Amino acid sequence: MSASLGLATRQRAPACPGQSVDAIDTPALVLDLDRFERNLSRLHERANTLGVRVRSHAKAHKCVEIARRQIAAGAVGLCVQKLAEAEVFVAAGFKDVLLTNQIASIAKAQRLAALTEHARIGVCVDAPEHIELLARAMAGRPTTLEVLIEIDVGMGRCGVHTVEAALELARMIADRDGLSLRGLQAYHGKAQHLRLPAQRRDAIGKAADIAASMQRELEAQGHSSLEITGAGTGTWLLEARSGVYTEIQPGSYVLMDADYGANEGAPDEPAFEQALAVRCALISRHGRTLVLDGGLKSFAVDSGLPVPEITGWRCVGVSDEHALVEVPADTVLPPLGSLVSMVPGHCDPTVNLHEWIVAYRGETVEAVWPVDARGAVF
Amino acid sequence: MSASLGLATRQRAPACPGQSVDAIDTPALVLDLDRFERNLSRLHERANTLGVRVRSHAKAHKCVEIARRQIAAGAVGLCVQKLAEAEVFVAAGFKDVLLTNQIASIAKAQRLAALTEHARIGVCVDAPEHIELLARAMAGRPTTLEVLIEIDVGMGRCGVHTVEAALELARMIADRDGLSLRGLQAYHGKAQHLRLPAQRRDAIGKAADIAASMQRELEAQGHSSLEITGAGTGTWLLEARSGVYTEIQPGSYVLMDADYGANEGAPDEPAFEQALAVRCALISRHGRTLVLDGGLKSFAVDSGLPVPEITGWRCVGVSDEHALVEVPADTVLPPLGSLVSMVPGHCDPTVNLHEWIVAYRGETVEAVWPVDARGAVF
Repeated sequence: MSASLGLATRQRAPACPGQSVDAIDTPALVLDLDRFERNLSRLHERANTLGVRVRSHAKAHKCVEIARRQIAAGAVGLCVQKLAEAEVFVAAGFKDVLLTNQIASIAKAQRLAALTEHARIGVCVDAPEHIELLARAMAGRPTTLEVLIEIDVGMGRCGVHTVEAALELARMIADRDGLSLRGLQAYHGKAQHLRLPAQRRDAIGKAADIAASMQRELEAQGHSSLEITGAGTGTWLLEARSGVYTEIQPGSYVLMDADYGANEGAPDEPAFEQALAVRCALISRHGRTLVLDGGLKSFAVDSGLPVPEITGWRCVGVSDEHALVEVPADTVLPPLGSLVSMVPGHCDPTVNLHEWIVAYRGETVEAVWPVDARGAVF
Repeated sequence: MSASLGLATRQRAPACPGQSVDAIDTPALVLDLDRFERNLSRLHERANTLGVRVRSHAKAHKCVEIARRQIAAGAVGLCVQKLAEAEVFVAAGFKDVLLTNQIASIAKAQRLAALTEHARIGVCVDAPEHIELLARAMAGRPTTLEVLIEIDVGMGRCGVHTVEAALELARMIADRDGLSLRGLQAYHGKAQHLRLPAQRRDAIGKAADIAASMQRELEAQGHSSLEITGAGTGTWLLEARSGVYTEIQPGSYVLMDADYGANEGAPDEPAFEQALAVRCALISRHGRTLVLDGGLKSFAVDSGLPVPEITGWRCVGVSDEHALVEVPADTVLPPLGSLVSMVPGHCDPTVNLHEWIVAYRGETVEAVWPVDARGAVF
């Protein structure tokens, strides 16, 4: 178990190492270690073969123990989505952390600047104001903060849209003490859940074209050796093979969820297994409807209701602390207290609800890991 | 600030008492104390006039400081939805806690039984198995666990459906040492968000009829002085005036959310004000779309996207750590770093994402309260 951070947790752990999986208190976030380890190997081995760097996105799991295993498997560093996450992982000893997001206050810029004394730190910008704040915060420091210009490659969220805007930001970064230009953040979030391989190929083809074009223009102005980074679990192999991206940022691949599970895989793409679940108990029932003890406070439903692991069972509703599951007419109704595992629709915000991940192998709990950066939104 | 529990929190507090509201770190859960206090007075004064007991539901706020103010305003005790919540509030000194839910393991029954040494404890059942577990856990204890038979009055979740089932459970409870029958749990969750007053009146009229009928049958068998408890923020006045319910269980009334705000109020019903918000910062923008630094990990979206407090602004999308807000064509675009308050769709699971509630009055932070039972799902 991780004791690296010395952070107390508020809720008791739902299990102890060595216990049977049947003794896990419910509802609990559980991780099948065999599947997790196969997912880890599949991605990192293939990425190593392709010669693309992997910077695993820790926003998916927020867990130091999982991040350590990603580094051990070959990840060059971590991505995080929040400054407070960066603080957690730097405090835990990680030496290369990229904040794939913008920050827009001097207080946050100063916190980020302080991290450069302990680790290699990267951050994204898409406006001059971001650079001014970062430069102010880095003033007088002996260290360097590495800056990536985020470009919008189809996501419709952050990122510049024109070469002129990117060139202006690149000039500003080059001009400021304490800042250096690392490259381009070119993440296409919307492409991750396009269901068909051809749709994803098309979207990432366009994203890579935009990134390559921006890169050429920047290089023509003397900004060389640019990192081109992006990609997620749904498209990572496309970016890895694009010849444009030098680094990929998948996060969910070690855990997986029902939304990723609904993607149709390409034939030459390694399939990831569903390793994460929320284990619930049956507390009531009427007719063929089971009432489970996990609800909105145990799984996020932004990407659909959780899916029971038993084929044919169907979640039909979720309230704060309950899920309703309908079972087929030929199912022998399980007794109260029975355990039912539910696959969450979306892993990232589901993990964020929990303080512990119960890691099991076969029928035995092997470890209980804190979700170190749970609630690290600041 | 509450120091009652001695529980460490993982994330730093986003503000300090005495600070200006503009200094609150983002994203943060904030509470307008003037509105909160008016909401509190409105419900408790009216309920006192009507002579109905109020047992405030702490699942909405999970916060000891808020619960204390509800007791001070006249609440006879608290409801909770989880055993782990009951443990938090009993540890904080609350003397009357009702678990409005079923538990279905002997380990949980034993934890609940242990609480009877410190407080008056109630729990719901809807099957013989629940009673057997509770009786086993209470065996040999000098205390009593008060049991409520949950009846389904239209919710379609837990609860018995027939008089025969209720009578069987009542007999079992009466027969077991350590258990006593307190009454009926008759909560109609689905009625809370029926938009029109007439719809809610109709639903609660039927619920009260079912509860009254069950009560008569139980009284005919010698089960007297039954508490009839239920109701939520959307319908509490209907149950309070029903002549059937002796106790009401509203939770959201002190906070409110966009889903409750969409209900059309009845003319004679006290209106509750939106006291809760998630305060975000503007971190990026393109065209008339603002990108805020709060997303799925800062507000729950099960009951709709968050609603910006500024009229005419509209949330059009939420991802893990971002919200996209579109502003009208005539809006002067705010600078990066500007603060935007968002009303969550559903308060309960939103509060559960946060470790702190920043309570402010006017322009000043007055207190920062821990969300003591955040994550207390076990």
